Amino acid sequence: MSNGFKCAGTIQSKDNPRIKQFCALAKAKKQRICEGLFVLEGIRLVADAVKNGAAIEYVLATQKALSELSEFDFDNIPVFEIPQQLCEKISQTQTPQGVFAVCAMIDNHIDFSKKSGKYLMLCDIQDNGNLGMIMRTADALGVDGMILSNCCDVYSPKTVRATMGSIFRVNFVVDKNPGLMLETMKENGIYTYAAVPDSRATNVSTFEFPQKACVLIGNEGNGLSPDIIEKCDDSVTIRMNGTIESLNAAMAAGIMLWELCGKDGHNAL
Amino acid sequence: MSNGFKCAGTIQSKDNPRIKQFCALAKAKKQRICEGLFVLEGIRLVADAVKNGAAIEYVLATQKALSELSEFDFDNIPVFEIPQQLCEKISQTQTPQGVFAVCAMIDNHIDFSKKSGKYLMLCDIQDNGNLGMIMRTADALGVDGMILSNCCDVYSPKTVRATMGSIFRVNFVVDKNPGLMLETMKENGIYTYAAVPDSRATNVSTFEFPQKACVLIGNEGNGLSPDIIEKCDDSVTIRMNGTIESLNAAMAAGIMLWELCGKDGHNAL
Repeated sequence: MSNGFKCAGTIQSKDNPRIKQFCALAKAKKQRICEGLFVLEGIRLVADAVKNGAAIEYVLATQKALSELSEFDFDNIPVFEIPQQLCEKISQTQTPQGVFAVCAMIDNHIDFSKKSGKYLMLCDIQDNGNLGMIMRTADALGVDGMILSNCCDVYSPKTVRATMGSIFRVNFVVDKNPGLMLETMKENGIYTYAAVPDSRATNVSTFEFPQKACVLIGNEGNGLSPDIIEKCDDSVTIRMNGTIESLNAAMAAGIMLWELCGKDGHNAL
Repeated sequence: MSNGFKCAGTIQSKDNPRIKQFCALAKAKKQRICEGLFVLEGIRLVADAVKNGAAIEYVLATQKALSELSEFDFDNIPVFEIPQQLCEKISQTQTPQGVFAVCAMIDNHIDFSKKSGKYLMLCDIQDNGNLGMIMRTADALGVDGMILSNCCDVYSPKTVRATMGSIFRVNFVVDKNPGLMLETMKENGIYTYAAVPDSRATNVSTFEFPQKACVLIGNEGNGLSPDIIEKCDDSVTIRMNGTIESLNAAMAAGIMLWELCGKDGHNAL
């Protein structure tokens, strides 16, 4: 394994196929699905992708940014230099760092048959920032697997940015059939818990989750569907002193994750 | 108490003094401090302000929005009708609801002498979204008081929006001298706990906070200053399985609040 990289060439025109591809992937979910690719922007995200063995197709970087990339192992990844005006054209941030990459979608697999496992299933989460923040928290608190069922696009640039690199560390799968997913978990002995705003549900603070457990979090506005709640083994709730609307979906997921798997952590804050 | 309101008149020009005042207050912290006023946008925020007895100077609303305001008690608050193009000019959202208000800054007082009390002190939080989200969570989990020490402006439109109305429900004070604040709390028998990323600190999940306790959360990038940590009675930490960077300040504050005061809540999720 060698460090550093060789510049594969310089791209000058906005009509270059790689620039056009980058912009198309950044813009449309349809394009991402069609090509099985997504985009990254920023030194940290690209570095996290490299560190975690993501399949990067190519990197685009300004001359200034190239010098900062030398510490990462870009062996076999083509790195193209782009001028500042192209950087500003393709950037989605106000102060671009000048580093971009096109990366293959992540091919995860969750092993539900393990003897113990803590899982989080998100149903119909629609805010990119919330999805990213939940994935970041799941990474911190050490979930064994995360199921994104009918959520907003995890590969949208906004979600990817909000994950702060956790997209490369969390074992997640994208799902479209929550009913079937619940059945699969049940067959593997995983107890499923619907997080609901209902004071009759089990109080999560006084409850101890079993060794194999999955918590389900629903949509920001509407929560989980009655159909999904019905299919779960039990319902759990976060008791509050204030108003119900005051806990957003990301924070509710964070507190559930803390109760589910955070408390036996090894590192600190 | 009567419901509804009388329209105090119609504003047509962008040069009208109230429109100019609204825009100046929305734009600059200096102007807000100078006038002791801040702005609200959206039906929910304005309704929350009215419900919680905030001192609203005046309301601006489009004809369409006026009809939706009739259920709230705007007695004695002047409501001015504005045309759609003025609404679009002063709005900070992509799909404006057409309701705006200018409101007096909130005059809170935290009574530290109570027999029991759970407090949250934020030091140098600089992201408006984080500050709003933490206030929202503090509202949900029922903190007795919140101290904003050298944080970003709680009255900026972005923070106010992120609080989702909790700015009118949480008992918060703005502070510039955290050392003096800590002394005041100590004099009142409140134990102070610095939240730190240090595995030698007390594990918050196995610790029981005393009846009078305050948790301190530091800056997004740098945490709490050594000086502040030194002045606290003890340090507490959130043990993690993943990487330290993966828990953002708002989520860390949320989990601390949950451990501090959330677990004995009355309502659900």
